[in-house]
Amino acid sequence: MELHSLSSTTGEWLRGEGPESDIVISTRIRLARNLRGRPFPPRAGPEARGLAEAFVRERVRGAAPFAEGVCLELARSSELDRKLLVERHLISRELANAEGQRSVAFTRDESTSVMINEEDHLRIQVIRSGMQLAACWEAADRVEHTLGSRLDFAFDDAFGYLTSCPTNVGTGMRVSVMLHLPALVLTKQMERVFEAMSKISLAVRGLFGEGTSASGDFYQISNQVTLGFDEAQLLGRLNDVIPKVIEHERHTRDALLADNRVKLEDRVWRALGVLRTARRISSEETMETLSSVRLGVNLGLLPGLSISTINTLFILTQPAHLQKLEGRPLATPERNERRARFIREQLGAP
Amino acid sequence: MELHSLSSTTGEWLRGEGPESDIVISTRIRLARNLRGRPFPPRAGPEARGLAEAFVRERVRGAAPFAEGVCLELARSSELDRKLLVERHLISRELANAEGQRSVAFTRDESTSVMINEEDHLRIQVIRSGMQLAACWEAADRVEHTLGSRLDFAFDDAFGYLTSCPTNVGTGMRVSVMLHLPALVLTKQMERVFEAMSKISLAVRGLFGEGTSASGDFYQISNQVTLGFDEAQLLGRLNDVIPKVIEHERHTRDALLADNRVKLEDRVWRALGVLRTARRISSEETMETLSSVRLGVNLGLLPGLSISTINTLFILTQPAHLQKLEGRPLATPERNERRARFIREQLGAP
Repeated sequence: MELHSLSSTTGEWLRGEGPESDIVISTRIRLARNLRGRPFPPRAGPEARGLAEAFVRERVRGAAPFAEGVCLELARSSELDRKLLVERHLISRELANAEGQRSVAFTRDESTSVMINEEDHLRIQVIRSGMQLAACWEAADRVEHTLGSRLDFAFDDAFGYLTSCPTNVGTGMRVSVMLHLPALVLTKQMERVFEAMSKISLAVRGLFGEGTSASGDFYQISNQVTLGFDEAQLLGRLNDVIPKVIEHERHTRDALLADNRVKLEDRVWRALGVLRTARRISSEETMETLSSVRLGVNLGLLPGLSISTINTLFILTQPAHLQKLEGRPLATPERNERRARFIREQLGAP
Repeated sequence: MELHSLSSTTGEWLRGEGPESDIVISTRIRLARNLRGRPFPPRAGPEARGLAEAFVRERVRGAAPFAEGVCLELARSSELDRKLLVERHLISRELANAEGQRSVAFTRDESTSVMINEEDHLRIQVIRSGMQLAACWEAADRVEHTLGSRLDFAFDDAFGYLTSCPTNVGTGMRVSVMLHLPALVLTKQMERVFEAMSKISLAVRGLFGEGTSASGDFYQISNQVTLGFDEAQLLGRLNDVIPKVIEHERHTRDALLADNRVKLEDRVWRALGVLRTARRISSEETMETLSSVRLGVNLGLLPGLSISTINTLFILTQPAHLQKLEGRPLATPERNERRARFIREQLGAP
C-alpha cells in the first residue's frame, strides 16, 4: 500500500454511519504499554530505542490485525508522509516530529493502529465511527491481548500498567469521543461544558488532541485519570456523560431552528456557497464552512449532500493531503487554490 | 399602466447593450426649464404652485412622447410609489419628499421623463443605455422643442434659460454619465479620478446623484457648470474625458487579471456564491456582490450570466421594489429575506 493512495481516501471511521453520527464523529481508545525490563523511550539512548523499536515492530507486524496492513519506519519516511499520518489521526504530532527509531503499524481500514516509541513503547489505538464505546473497547482489548501474547508488558500489581508519564499509569487507557458541537459554539455554551467536564475529571480538547484548538467546532472529550479505576469504570463515566452533551447540542440545534430558522439556513447555505465557488480558501475558512455545512446536512437544510462527503473533506483538505494529491510541495497560496479546486470537484461545483 | 407592473421590469436604459456597456451604464441629460411670468417653485405659494403644476401637466400630457405614457400626481401617490420612482431614477429624492402639487410624466420605456415642480417647473430627462451623448442630446433637444412649442420658457438673452438655482442658469443642462468602476475602486484610484474631474469642473457623484454614496461602485460624472458654455461645449468636454476614465478602468481590469487572476476569480465567484445561496441579504451587501459579479461577467469569468440580468437586479432588489413585488410593506428583516429569495429566483439558484 502506497501512502500516496491515502491522499484521496479516508479511514473507515469517517464514513459517518455510527450511532449518534450527527454529533459524534468517532470513538477512540488508546492503550499505553511498555516492555518489561527495557528503558522506556524518554529514558532510552539511541541504541536502546532502536533495539526496542525493532523488537516491537517485528512482533506487531506478525500479529493478526496488522499482517495485511501497513508498517512504516518513520525515520525513513518523508516529513510530508509523517504530516499526512498526523492529519489522518494515525500518529501523534509528537511521534511525527520526534527523532530516532520509531514507527507505526495500521490496518488497511485505519481503524486499528500501534505507534511504536512514542512516549511509550506501544500506543495501541482503535477508532470507530460514531458513539461506540463498547465496541471500541472490545476491539482495543482484543488487540492488546494479541500483542500481549507476543510481548511482555511492564505491569505492577499495585499500580497496573507502567507508563512513561505518571498520568497514564494504571489502565494506560485514554478514551476519547470526538464531538461536533456547532450549536453549542454558536450559542457560546462551550465554556459551561468545559467547566462541567473538568469537575468530573474529563478533559475537553481540540481536533488533534492535547494543546490544539477546536477548529471546525470539533471537541474531544476524554478521561484525564487512568489510575484508581478499572477500564469499565472509566468507560462508564464517558457513557454517562457523553449522551448528556449530545442531548444538549441537539436541543440547542432545535432551539436555533425554532427561534430563527432563516438565520441558520442563511448561515449553512452561505457556507456551502463559499465552498462551491471559492477559487482559494484557507484551512481555517474550510474548517469553519465545512462545520456549518455539516450542521446544515444534519438538520436536513441542505438536501443532496452526504455526511460522509463532508466528513471526508475535513481530512482530505489538510495541507499534507493536498500536497500528496498534487504530488509535490505546495506553498500556502498554491495550497489554498488547490484546496478550493479539490472542494469544488468533490461537491460537483462548476 | 399600473405602477405595480414596474416592480418586475426595468427601463429600457438598463438593458446593458449600449456602447461601452461593460463600464458605462447609462447616459443621462437633464434640462431645467421654467415658465415665464410665474414664480419659480421655491418662491411660489401653494396656489401658484398648484396652478403652474396643472398648467404644465396638461401640456406635457398632450405632447407626443408622453401621450401614451404615464403621468402621476405625486401628492396623490403613496410614499411607496414615490420611492419606487426614485429607485428607478424617474424622479429625484427631493421631488419624492417635497410637499404640495408636483408630478412626473414618463414614456413607457422610461427613457424620457419630465418632473414638474421640482426645483424648477420642468426637469426634462432623457436616459440611454451605455455611452450615447449625441443620441441622448438629440432626444432631449427634441423633447424640449416639443414642450417649448406648448409652453413659454423663461429665457434671458444675456443669461440664457433661467432657473431657481444659479448653478443651473444658462443651458439648464446637466449631462451625467453613470460608470461602473469596480477596478478603480478595488485599486483605490478613485481619489485621483475625483481630483482630475474637479480640475476641469466635472463632478463625481454616487448612484442617486448629489449627496449620495457610490454604492455598487457606480459613479456619475457630470458637468458642474451650465453657464458660459453652449450645449455642444458641455457635451464635448464629457466626450473628451469619459473615454479616458473608461480606458483607465479597462486597463486596471486587465492589470488585475494579469497580476492576480485567481484573486479576482475568487472575488467574483464568491460574490455569485453569496447571491445564489443567501437566505437574507442587505441592500449594501447586494450592491457589493452584484458589483463584483458584474465585473466578473464583463471579464468573461462568469459564463452563462447576462449583464442585463445583473443590471436589472441592481434596480429590482431595492426596498420599494421588493415591497411592491410582495404587495405589502415589509420591515427590514422581511425585506432582506424577500430580497435573497428574489435574487435566487432571478439567478435560477436552489
